[in-house]
Amino acid sequence: MIAESAVAALDIGGTKISAGLISRAGDLLWQRAEATAQSSLADSLDQLTNLIVEAVIHAPAHCTVAGVGLAVPGWVNRRAGTVWAPNIAGWDHIPLLRELRQRVRWPLQVDSDRNAYVLGEAWRGRAAGLEDVVFLAVGTGIGAGIISGGRLIRGRDDLAGCAGWFALQPEFQELYAWMGCLEAEASGKSLGRKAEERDFFAGRDELRGQGARAVIEAAEHDDAAGRALLDEAAGFLGMGVANLISTLNPQMVVLGGGLFQRGEYLLAAVRRETMRWAQPMAAERVRIERSTLDEHAGLYGAARIAWDENSAGSASATGPE
Amino acid sequence: MIAESAVAALDIGGTKISAGLISRAGDLLWQRAEATAQSSLADSLDQLTNLIVEAVIHAPAHCTVAGVGLAVPGWVNRRAGTVWAPNIAGWDHIPLLRELRQRVRWPLQVDSDRNAYVLGEAWRGRAAGLEDVVFLAVGTGIGAGIISGGRLIRGRDDLAGCAGWFALQPEFQELYAWMGCLEAEASGKSLGRKAEERDFFAGRDELRGQGARAVIEAAEHDDAAGRALLDEAAGFLGMGVANLISTLNPQMVVLGGGLFQRGEYLLAAVRRETMRWAQPMAAERVRIERSTLDEHAGLYGAARIAWDENSAGSASATGPE
Repeated sequence: MIAESAVAALDIGGTKISAGLISRAGDLLWQRAEATAQSSLADSLDQLTNLIVEAVIHAPAHCTVAGVGLAVPGWVNRRAGTVWAPNIAGWDHIPLLRELRQRVRWPLQVDSDRNAYVLGEAWRGRAAGLEDVVFLAVGTGIGAGIISGGRLIRGRDDLAGCAGWFALQPEFQELYAWMGCLEAEASGKSLGRKAEERDFFAGRDELRGQGARAVIEAAEHDDAAGRALLDEAAGFLGMGVANLISTLNPQMVVLGGGLFQRGEYLLAAVRRETMRWAQPMAAERVRIERSTLDEHAGLYGAARIAWDENSAGSASATGPE
Repeated sequence: MIAESAVAALDIGGTKISAGLISRAGDLLWQRAEATAQSSLADSLDQLTNLIVEAVIHAPAHCTVAGVGLAVPGWVNRRAGTVWAPNIAGWDHIPLLRELRQRVRWPLQVDSDRNAYVLGEAWRGRAAGLEDVVFLAVGTGIGAGIISGGRLIRGRDDLAGCAGWFALQPEFQELYAWMGCLEAEASGKSLGRKAEERDFFAGRDELRGQGARAVIEAAEHDDAAGRALLDEAAGFLGMGVANLISTLNPQMVVLGGGLFQRGEYLLAAVRRETMRWAQPMAAERVRIERSTLDEHAGLYGAARIAWDENSAGSASATGPE
């Protein structure tokens, strides 16, 4: 008889790291989050090592730990075996797995956070069991994780899913060269910037620090200025979602990230805009849903990363080294 | 010893059908084209049957015919086993393979023309041997064939690659609802329409029937009106190619179809525009090339369709029935 097994999962963000222990069946056995070390690479590696050990220690007596999966907010270059995460101090094309393998003895696998999100959603979320799914994360930045025909779409250099770079209006602007057109028009950060530029915060100084969140909150309460800002963002997001649908013909697009964590106004507007633009037969056949896993999508996805790479016969199993 | 084998390949278009016999090694042993029957489904099926038999008859004495591959200009719904090709009389969600299997005894496979194009290019064209390739066909209409990680991207309902529906500018126009934004702005048909609307043909009545071809010819000869029209099309096409690159991170984008059959002006302009918009690291790593197979891409692709489906262990082998 084979004992039940679990994996340690780390969902690493620029501000916090969520660590968990997740069973083969998909149960979250233990979970804890802490602020991301932003002092040096050495401190980062210590932090990850400690969190991995802490997760493993929490395994029940009957349960073996089969490996560790890490989701990182940046470019996982599988061919080079490096990770680039500009939002974490010292993560400048570092050989993350090689470094960590000198510190912990469990099998380690790493992938990008957007791949983790879509893997998590297709395992334990709204898209559970589906084989053609896109996860569009709209937070500070914008990126997509893509599963097509049951397999992650990685692209030649693990750069697929850069949906923040969607070109959606012909007049090129300076800002587009830095973050891409869609991200400049509709990310959480850009929504906050536009709110400032258009005096949304005039007379509501107490909301100024909240950025996009204040705009979403206002729109939910019928505020005209808030709705105008969200309508504009929804126009661009709908075009972007439509382009993903016309290109990939998924069964489901899952919308996640900070902008979709609360409220109905933006979700309804994006659905409406998407339907105007997408190829009609593909549009008819797709469901557009909000993520229900919230911040756990990355954690479940990190677990999938560990499992998939460690399972014989897995569809997406080719290691980074 | 296994005898050399070949397949019959049919590249079916709305105006003509190209039939060929192609060896396992990729040699075109025989080829002939004729006008597409546009009278009825029965006549269509007779025509296809006759062309298949004619191709098979041309097999050399030592050569067995392993199967038949068909590329069709429409929607190949593999789950339903039907083909919808609005440009061919009577092809209204017809069970094409079932019909043909009652008429010919060789194994038959069918796929869309855009899938055939990219399979042909990745076998015998500019993209030979590559595993991450997009073929963008810009002719009367616009569509993309996608190979990612060595596999065709089909989408859930075989509707992937509908790049003509890319949303590329926020002001929605009536025409977009019929053919998609990119196709309304930059297909061969739309280029001809814009040339009419903007009096490009005033004073050049002899060119009026040529549509987009006259515009391309004029632009190659430094004609300002012709270049203005192509610049506008290139702006939209560059955004579309950029979106494919940012989504899929291919090694190569192959540009084909009528608009890229001759001249350098449009190709150079599309390359330039693409580089402005695409995710920079993915843009740095991609090559944008014109198809060199010209009209034979579909024929080679139809052969791949026959081979892939008939080969044991083929990566893309799941039949439509």
